[in-house]
Amino acid sequence: MKLSSYIGLYCLLFLTFWPLSAQAKVFNAESFKLENGLEVIIIPNNRAPVVTSMIWYKVGAADEPQGLSGMAHYFEHLMFKGTDKLAPGEFSRTVKKLGGNDNAFTGQDYTAYFQTIAVEHLDKMLAMEADRMVNLKVPKEHFISEKKVVLEERRQRTENDPKGLFGEQMRSALFVNHPYGTPTIGWMDEIKGYDWEDVKIFYDAWYAPNNAVIIISGDVTIKSVKPLVEKHFADIKPKELPKRVRPSVPKAIGQTKMILRHSSIHQPSFSKVFLAPSFQNAKKDALALQVLEQILSGGPTTRLYKALVVDNKKAISVGLSYNGTASDYGTLSLFGTPVENGDLDTLINDIHAEIKALQVNGVTAKELEDAKQQLIDSAIYARDSLSGPAMTIGQNIMTGSTLDDVENWPEAIQAVTADEVRNVAIKYLTLETPWVRPAITGYLYPETKTKKMKDAK
Amino acid sequence: MKLSSYIGLYCLLFLTFWPLSAQAKVFNAESFKLENGLEVIIIPNNRAPVVTSMIWYKVGAADEPQGLSGMAHYFEHLMFKGTDKLAPGEFSRTVKKLGGNDNAFTGQDYTAYFQTIAVEHLDKMLAMEADRMVNLKVPKEHFISEKKVVLEERRQRTENDPKGLFGEQMRSALFVNHPYGTPTIGWMDEIKGYDWEDVKIFYDAWYAPNNAVIIISGDVTIKSVKPLVEKHFADIKPKELPKRVRPSVPKAIGQTKMILRHSSIHQPSFSKVFLAPSFQNAKKDALALQVLEQILSGGPTTRLYKALVVDNKKAISVGLSYNGTASDYGTLSLFGTPVENGDLDTLINDIHAEIKALQVNGVTAKELEDAKQQLIDSAIYARDSLSGPAMTIGQNIMTGSTLDDVENWPEAIQAVTADEVRNVAIKYLTLETPWVRPAITGYLYPETKTKKMKDAK
Repeated sequence: MKLSSYIGLYCLLFLTFWPLSAQAKVFNAESFKLENGLEVIIIPNNRAPVVTSMIWYKVGAADEPQGLSGMAHYFEHLMFKGTDKLAPGEFSRTVKKLGGNDNAFTGQDYTAYFQTIAVEHLDKMLAMEADRMVNLKVPKEHFISEKKVVLEERRQRTENDPKGLFGEQMRSALFVNHPYGTPTIGWMDEIKGYDWEDVKIFYDAWYAPNNAVIIISGDVTIKSVKPLVEKHFADIKPKELPKRVRPSVPKAIGQTKMILRHSSIHQPSFSKVFLAPSFQNAKKDALALQVLEQILSGGPTTRLYKALVVDNKKAISVGLSYNGTASDYGTLSLFGTPVENGDLDTLINDIHAEIKALQVNGVTAKELEDAKQQLIDSAIYARDSLSGPAMTIGQNIMTGSTLDDVENWPEAIQAVTADEVRNVAIKYLTLETPWVRPAITGYLYPETKTKKMKDAK
Repeated sequence: MKLSSYIGLYCLLFLTFWPLSAQAKVFNAESFKLENGLEVIIIPNNRAPVVTSMIWYKVGAADEPQGLSGMAHYFEHLMFKGTDKLAPGEFSRTVKKLGGNDNAFTGQDYTAYFQTIAVEHLDKMLAMEADRMVNLKVPKEHFISEKKVVLEERRQRTENDPKGLFGEQMRSALFVNHPYGTPTIGWMDEIKGYDWEDVKIFYDAWYAPNNAVIIISGDVTIKSVKPLVEKHFADIKPKELPKRVRPSVPKAIGQTKMILRHSSIHQPSFSKVFLAPSFQNAKKDALALQVLEQILSGGPTTRLYKALVVDNKKAISVGLSYNGTASDYGTLSLFGTPVENGDLDTLINDIHAEIKALQVNGVTAKELEDAKQQLIDSAIYARDSLSGPAMTIGQNIMTGSTLDDVENWPEAIQAVTADEVRNVAIKYLTLETPWVRPAITGYLYPETKTKKMKDAK
């Protein structure tokens, strides 16, 4: 919602898969459900008398009606614009006055609101969340002014940034017929066109206790939280929720290349994005893809980086990135930037050779064990933070995983075999065949007159 | 509806813009409207006691709900599957028994049903059309079996045809965020998923007298037709119609190239498709684009063909094709196939050079006059046919033009200036700039092992 933290969260949510954590149960989270369908998850952590309290709604950019792209994110802004009891902006002012901070973010599959604050104010936070779940009353002038805020946000981050626009286009070309191809912030023209009535329909349809999950991380127990949640939320009636329509991406044929030469680009680079499974649609493949990602580019000693940056000095960056935390589809991206005066096509060939070697020969036992250990170790660090665990659990629950999936993730990673890793590399990193899963290769080049002419064909 | 004629119509509707016709009024059509909103257009032609009777509904593939692509076309099939009075298939059997023939077709912006038959049976035809406008009763087993028919149709024409699939992908890549990017027949997975309930909702929403236009061409007058139409349709109640949601295509940056090498391809070829205005959204530009199309590739003596096929013998085919008969967007396509052993990139460069020459120097007075005369002449031929005029008027009325636009088209073409032609060439055939209207270049190559490796980058 506030620009700076929105950007930070955006990166966190869309560019990385936050590893879920280590050992028997990672977070020792507990949960309960109210009769109206509201789920509550508690992650006890009593090192300080502080909580992060989040409410996640199962509605995101991918649930927007045709022609109203960006509505979920815009609506997130409006949730701060007043209720029967609170004036516009008073929600955040109240949090601040009590020494806390708050924010919100929108993804393709969810929208979430959170506060980090002294545990004694949790009661007040839940009261305010319950209030805006049902009593939102946005004055018309804020409906209008907030549109301008969002349009400016889009201008700054995308519209005036060739690389930003280009990235959007790559997503659109990959996710044919699927709302993941539409940017979360929405298309410029459609943001301009929102009606007051659209907003009301959106709120009435999706904001309900049976479409929400509260996640509280910090100095709390089920016993301390349950009475507070019941006090504020138990009387809110559930709604009949709309069906979430999520079409499938049709199979693709041939190669798609997108090329941008622009004066704002200083070094050539590429990224090749493949459609991949999410945890939701192929859990075992998703786990093997996490291990593959770690083996190929989990650090300075792993395959791609070691071969092309450290040993051969052909690239200044290179890697594979997997994101499987989504309801419908994940993505798998190869990317790289050659050293100065290095040739991009040569680098791509070298990366392909590394991938092919892995597809033919598989991975070594040591690579496999190292990668698993690094992933599992990362789960230990995840416990340290207050908001991190709430974020991890929220993202996973919202995209179709269970609390058990999150808690038992280290065992699931431990069980991945070398054959499984090789098989997902063969299955999803399809470099050559004409009948393939959709894959888009994007090329960024500094602008040069001759090259520009050449590419115009 | 029937496969063979469906293909023929598909070509007519989507690949060509049928020139509208010549002189004061082209068709001398007349029209009237019933109180329930049903429009009726009569095109008198008394050379034989025969009529083509069409009913056009203002609903097409671009109006389908998300996830139900192909519904408009599938529903067109179901319209032949029975009413309270008629058994499945009886509609067409009746037409045949009376010596006529019937068919139907679906586009992005409309669905149309027609019969060509002796004028004495027009009464019966209108009775049956009125009946299926309100009383459709499709037995469940036909709902199921017709899905198989449509799936087979898609398999034959697209799914098993690499070039068909590739063409679909090019459309999807061009029409980002717009339903024109979805094939009229629908995506395989979505056809499989139709529910009985979806069909009923679609019929109830769109099939109504105030969403239809009847066009009758042949041995009729307003006086002879009006009583018949009133008898069958006047009692049908109008409906409140859904809003047609037509999003806009976001601006694009960079170049998009799609490449297919496949064993089924025997000669290299390319097509470069630009987003262009439709008549509906920029009438003057659309008229100038029709003249531009004629000047560049309207016949063996026009620019592209003469330069590259006749004089330099570099191509076996080359051309520019403009289609502006659409509610939202038109397309402008450059295409070509080099002579045997000719180089595709060289041909593309040569075509670009011809386009650039026109953008710099404009067109000659003779070229302009010849092109206009050819277009206007073509309107004279259009009068000869019975169904042609009904088709032309239907397509244009359904995509936002008026009857006057159609009737006065020759004058409008006559008024196009050389500057207007040059300006639309500059504005829409954008070959080089990084910030462009969306344009997609598709390359088809015969499969060769070495090239295949090269392109995998």
